[in-house]
Amino acid sequence: MTEQMKNEIRTLVESARIAQVSSIDADGYPNNKAMLTLHHDDLFTHYFSTNYFSRRVRQFQANPRASVYFCDEGQFKGLLLVGQVEVLADHESKAKFWRPGFEIYYPDGIDTENYCIYKFTAHRANYYHNLQNTDFTLEEYENA
Amino acid sequence: MTEQMKNEIRTLVESARIAQVSSIDADGYPNNKAMLTLHHDDLFTHYFSTNYFSRRVRQFQANPRASVYFCDEGQFKGLLLVGQVEVLADHESKAKFWRPGFEIYYPDGIDTENYCIYKFTAHRANYYHNLQNTDFTLEEYENA
Repeated sequence: MTEQMKNEIRTLVESARIAQVSSIDADGYPNNKAMLTLHHDDLFTHYFSTNYFSRRVRQFQANPRASVYFCDEGQFKGLLLVGQVEVLADHESKAKFWRPGFEIYYPDGIDTENYCIYKFTAHRANYYHNLQNTDFTLEEYENA
Repeated sequence: MTEQMKNEIRTLVESARIAQVSSIDADGYPNNKAMLTLHHDDLFTHYFSTNYFSRRVRQFQANPRASVYFCDEGQFKGLLLVGQVEVLADHESKAKFWRPGFEIYYPDGIDTENYCIYKFTAHRANYYHNLQNTDFTLEEYENA
């Protein structure tokens, strides 16, 4: 991992308004959905808000395997993160990630039953650019 | 399926330059990648060109389960198609989908070993817009 690649990846993730979040459905097929980015702790740990009473929450509860993908379509850059989703429905997590405007979707506020958080944690990553794929670990990224 | 929804979906797919193509990796995790759209026969049958000697081809040969996802990020519209990918490496398929410019990536032309085609065939679909999910079949779409 070069410093230039690290900077490209950081820019890709920090400027992303949308990430592609993939799950595995009850029949064992991948399912993808665009989600608004919400927060990340580091490159390998991302959070999303969603409806608790949704098909996708049931998918992740049955099978936590997931991927999160960031792309710059114009520049053919793509970052694939592979890992697991944990569905967080406790008050503390819901309060921590509550944002102004969420009340439009969740009128009972932080404790609206239908509001919850995905915590995604990656265990591997692949960056694609200029026809090249590069696998890397969080350690390799952070030390670049 | 209303005629308006059908028109929205048709516009979404026909104006898309990119689709998100998801596979399942050897460890059972979903993997997503943005791919350039190439051709479709109908809403449930899409083709993509790719490198035969790639990790993803090996994934689809081991597990053909796939999804193809089209989205309009600005309008929060998303079409999820769930189905299977067949990897086509025969001369006839490779000739049928060859496009001017491919020689940059595949200098030996149509019969370049590293050039192949994905044929994706969906068996179910979900359209998301205005906070609503709608499942539908190809028949429901075509008769709308």
